[in-house]
Amino acid sequence: MKRAVVLLSGGLDSATTLAICRRDGFEPHALSFDYGQRHHLELQAARRVAASLGANEHRIALIDLRIFGGSALTDEIAVPKNRDVKSANEIPITYVPARNTIFLSYALAWCEVLGAADMFIGANAIDYSGYPDCRPEFISAFERLAGVATKAGVAGTRFRIHAPLISMSKADIIRKGVELGVDFSLTHSCYDPNSGGLACGQCDSCRLRLDGFRAAGMEDPITYART
Amino acid sequence: MKRAVVLLSGGLDSATTLAICRRDGFEPHALSFDYGQRHHLELQAARRVAASLGANEHRIALIDLRIFGGSALTDEIAVPKNRDVKSANEIPITYVPARNTIFLSYALAWCEVLGAADMFIGANAIDYSGYPDCRPEFISAFERLAGVATKAGVAGTRFRIHAPLISMSKADIIRKGVELGVDFSLTHSCYDPNSGGLACGQCDSCRLRLDGFRAAGMEDPITYART
Repeated sequence: MKRAVVLLSGGLDSATTLAICRRDGFEPHALSFDYGQRHHLELQAARRVAASLGANEHRIALIDLRIFGGSALTDEIAVPKNRDVKSANEIPITYVPARNTIFLSYALAWCEVLGAADMFIGANAIDYSGYPDCRPEFISAFERLAGVATKAGVAGTRFRIHAPLISMSKADIIRKGVELGVDFSLTHSCYDPNSGGLACGQCDSCRLRLDGFRAAGMEDPITYART
Repeated sequence: MKRAVVLLSGGLDSATTLAICRRDGFEPHALSFDYGQRHHLELQAARRVAASLGANEHRIALIDLRIFGGSALTDEIAVPKNRDVKSANEIPITYVPARNTIFLSYALAWCEVLGAADMFIGANAIDYSGYPDCRPEFISAFERLAGVATKAGVAGTRFRIHAPLISMSKADIIRKGVELGVDFSLTHSCYDPNSGGLACGQCDSCRLRLDGFRAAGMEDPITYART
């Protein structure tokens, strides 16, 4: 069984991605980051999801993105509420500078140690809020980089970054997750750390999730503070 | 004055790179990593070098590469001694998987927050011990990635990774450093943490450094346990 490193945030997208990784015949090694995010509930969700979906192992890398700041997810900047996500054209304040570049760099390091060539990331270019590092051109640029950056790459390993959700709508992702047995009650998507342990129902992430369940004709199993 | 992020390890190469960054008219923001390296003396050297060469600020990012292991610099693997560095063809055990990829990812994040487009790295493809992420093809692949990975890149910023030492011999680097006023007595290059605070004189890094000073016709101002 081929090993793969799967980035696991604890949200809906990465849970579905982990399920797809297993379906595709890989042995999943799940990787999460404690990066000073304000919504620490994510990591608890990641642990539940990794256990529930049978990840071979789950490691949490401690990194500190707060030393640079610059994002509502790591800084003391308010998380925006009730934005019209889909018509908003600018990149929102919840963008964390170079986040997926940093995450994939760690995944690549772990791949080399594991002798793995495959990484899975739940990046999504459709419903997502316009983050540059969730686009196909980012994914392929990183694959090229991985080939020249590593001992394994120089020795002939062809690294592949699987982004199976990249062109799927949130509704499609939810349907796919349900089909593959993902228990979405274990996931946590909310950006706001101040909702008493519940999802706030109003940040970009909650709104995309709620819209997705609505479009899929399903009910979201988690509890919201307010919708 | 344009800002630049400079990767600073505390060794000879990155000290010279910081001096070149200043000479080229940039305001240097120095970035070091506490990555569970066994030779923690590096970080003390980095602090001294940043202060001595007038870095605008110096930040140390805490990251943990030990969670993956796989290198003599982060694992409990013995640092090789008295190898014939230049004729050795394989990549040595002191290679840290994806290290420069991870380091440049952080530099990129900080660039975005600073509004900077320039990164400096002391990578060297000649005297260095054959690390894949010290080659020109790695540098240019990362520049391409930076352009598509970031909000700033999408908005038109052209990120540039300066690797001014990449084709220089160790002797040339030493001469250049001296010319620019680098005090090499402040630097620390040794890989071995068990030499009582001194450089061991026998690991790859010490041997390359000693050979470089010899070839430059200069005396290395640091004290060695044994040469």
